[in-house]
Amino acid sequence: MAVGLTKDLPRMHDVAGIRLSATSAGIKASGRRDLVLIEICEQGSSAAVFTRNAFCAAPVILSRQHLAKKSPRYLLINSGNANAGTGERGISDAGACCAALAALTGCMTEEVLPFSTGVIGEPLPVSVINNGLHNAIDQLRPDGWGDAAHGIMTTDTVPKGVSRQFTLHEGTITITGISKGSGMICPNMATMLAYIATDANIEQGMLQRCLEIAVAASFNSITVDGDTSTNDACVLIATGKTPLPQLQEGSEEFVTFQEALTEVCIELAQAIIRDGEGATKFITIEIQQGASTDEARQVAYAIANSPLVKTAFFASDPNWGRILAAVGRAGVEDLDAGKVSIYLDETCIVWEGQRAREYQEPQGVKVMKRDQITIRVLLGRGTHTTRVWTCDFSYDYVKINAEYRS
Amino acid sequence: MAVGLTKDLPRMHDVAGIRLSATSAGIKASGRRDLVLIEICEQGSSAAVFTRNAFCAAPVILSRQHLAKKSPRYLLINSGNANAGTGERGISDAGACCAALAALTGCMTEEVLPFSTGVIGEPLPVSVINNGLHNAIDQLRPDGWGDAAHGIMTTDTVPKGVSRQFTLHEGTITITGISKGSGMICPNMATMLAYIATDANIEQGMLQRCLEIAVAASFNSITVDGDTSTNDACVLIATGKTPLPQLQEGSEEFVTFQEALTEVCIELAQAIIRDGEGATKFITIEIQQGASTDEARQVAYAIANSPLVKTAFFASDPNWGRILAAVGRAGVEDLDAGKVSIYLDETCIVWEGQRAREYQEPQGVKVMKRDQITIRVLLGRGTHTTRVWTCDFSYDYVKINAEYRS
Repeated sequence: MAVGLTKDLPRMHDVAGIRLSATSAGIKASGRRDLVLIEICEQGSSAAVFTRNAFCAAPVILSRQHLAKKSPRYLLINSGNANAGTGERGISDAGACCAALAALTGCMTEEVLPFSTGVIGEPLPVSVINNGLHNAIDQLRPDGWGDAAHGIMTTDTVPKGVSRQFTLHEGTITITGISKGSGMICPNMATMLAYIATDANIEQGMLQRCLEIAVAASFNSITVDGDTSTNDACVLIATGKTPLPQLQEGSEEFVTFQEALTEVCIELAQAIIRDGEGATKFITIEIQQGASTDEARQVAYAIANSPLVKTAFFASDPNWGRILAAVGRAGVEDLDAGKVSIYLDETCIVWEGQRAREYQEPQGVKVMKRDQITIRVLLGRGTHTTRVWTCDFSYDYVKINAEYRS
Repeated sequence: MAVGLTKDLPRMHDVAGIRLSATSAGIKASGRRDLVLIEICEQGSSAAVFTRNAFCAAPVILSRQHLAKKSPRYLLINSGNANAGTGERGISDAGACCAALAALTGCMTEEVLPFSTGVIGEPLPVSVINNGLHNAIDQLRPDGWGDAAHGIMTTDTVPKGVSRQFTLHEGTITITGISKGSGMICPNMATMLAYIATDANIEQGMLQRCLEIAVAASFNSITVDGDTSTNDACVLIATGKTPLPQLQEGSEEFVTFQEALTEVCIELAQAIIRDGEGATKFITIEIQQGASTDEARQVAYAIANSPLVKTAFFASDPNWGRILAAVGRAGVEDLDAGKVSIYLDETCIVWEGQRAREYQEPQGVKVMKRDQITIRVLLGRGTHTTRVWTCDFSYDYVKINAEYRS
């Protein structure tokens, strides 16, 4: 189902200083792998961004607290139970798992960050997880990225992973990452999670800024259905195991690293959309000539989240009236409809507020039959641009989300 | 399909000073009625609100211009063609129809307001409409409300009409209205239109304020899919044909009138939701204890427009995690999740941020099987409330919107 993705991951390069395992603790009734452990070497630095949803889940609350105190040595991720909507008990449950892992590995409880994805509102099966920890620790290995990509899956139909190596002056830097998620929300099983590691040597504050820049252009520029999750999280680890010197902000090497990281994040984020619930089309929305980036994003999301636009894409219907109406309702102040133009890939369908003179429906139909399409909107107001990715809205979206628990 | 509606309109009381007709001009290929004419007596006053979509259609632009100059004598409404995205030509086309009607009836062109609903981006069939005007004028009659309700339908499955009579001190006042619309947008055929008339005697400025109050609590408090149309319009006419004296702002009679008008508008607006595209459930969303009405509405619309909440309702799944997550992402600043409670009808499902202690899934399942359900959210922040109506999201929504033009 996933648009332009295969069941096979690309080659996932090891990252010196990282070991991973993915085992079956028994949280998922299916017996599939549901416990992922990521071990970080000493002296590694970690950065993270979390969901902005006011109802953030217990593991998000605890991870934030632990991160504020210590640099993590372990990321403990379970799939099958979100530990969300579980109140104080949820926090102590997540803490109990961290404490158990700390006892087994000899680190401090605060050096473990917990993550959960799965059903909301059910208590975390603490003893099931803790009974699985021995096995999880035993299985840790540097080439565990592919297994981990599988272990964090829920409604995902394919594992998602990206790995890049690039040369800085004297040597090679690796960035490897995995992600999961197929709706933007965790109604039950669709939280977005991403874990990325590099052997680069970067100071923690700088690492956090790098991650925030990359996330803005990637995970925060995608939408399946406009919903955000209670459990969304993205972690970036720099092990510093490269023999290369520490990256300096503003240096040429730093720019190269930031670009590579952003690329990895974009590819991981796009994979979530390509595997969006019921997706049959991968849609890029480019807004140009905005008076500000904010208004460009307003317009992009108005289009990306319009059920009418999304069902038209599912039907391969070049229904430009729906795109135009979505632009019109985006809330851009004093928008001059007579200056707005719209392209579907290379085909101009609306020119300055009206159906383009040369445009004939068969041209639009031809574009809409593709499974990867770019909508480009020129607002005629300025020079700001943005880019957002989404997917179409199919029978299967309703089916997946209506029948999930039935 | 429409939830809680029948194919039969209630008794539609005539409004003294109003005559209506609904005829087939030949705009709709099906041969169904597609031209509605509403005649307003001399000295009647009219108020109107139009779409806020920046891409408003030609008839909306022209109606606004005409209203600014003259009090209308005729409303000329065609279904089957929206005359939207048609640029300058669309405006001159709409004007040509107004001019033709003016010539036939002896009024001024500016005394005709044009309205259109139907396919976007196709030129208005001016001669087809103008050839139908003779017939439309001939058929005008005071008891034409039911016919008019049918004539403005597009994807609607049932006609929508409400009629109320109530007593003021010395006599009876009538309010009768019709509406159409089944998605909030006019992708092709789903613009929201409403026409309401009363024999009350009200000064024009006051009438406009009355309409705006009623519309805020009704047509501006419903959502099928978060989209607004290029052609939405709501007109309120006061013929002044009652022998009762003119209503005075702030008087007891005025309050009675405003309440009755708001009720009529709410019922007409609810009918649009009950007949929402593919709707199987009618959902009322009540937000209480907001710090402001604005934030209460933010939360209400975040729930109402969440595809995940809507598909859960379609599936009769008491998936409170989705409602909770929608509240959490509504963007309310400093929302304390620990103070939020959620009810499904009489059943408390979330109490202070967690699954309610007494709540058992079978209770939720029982409520969700109903075809009319109220979600009530207590924010624990203040005293402001709001109420919004929506419907669920079914296979048929995708079918109707994906296959419309195929």
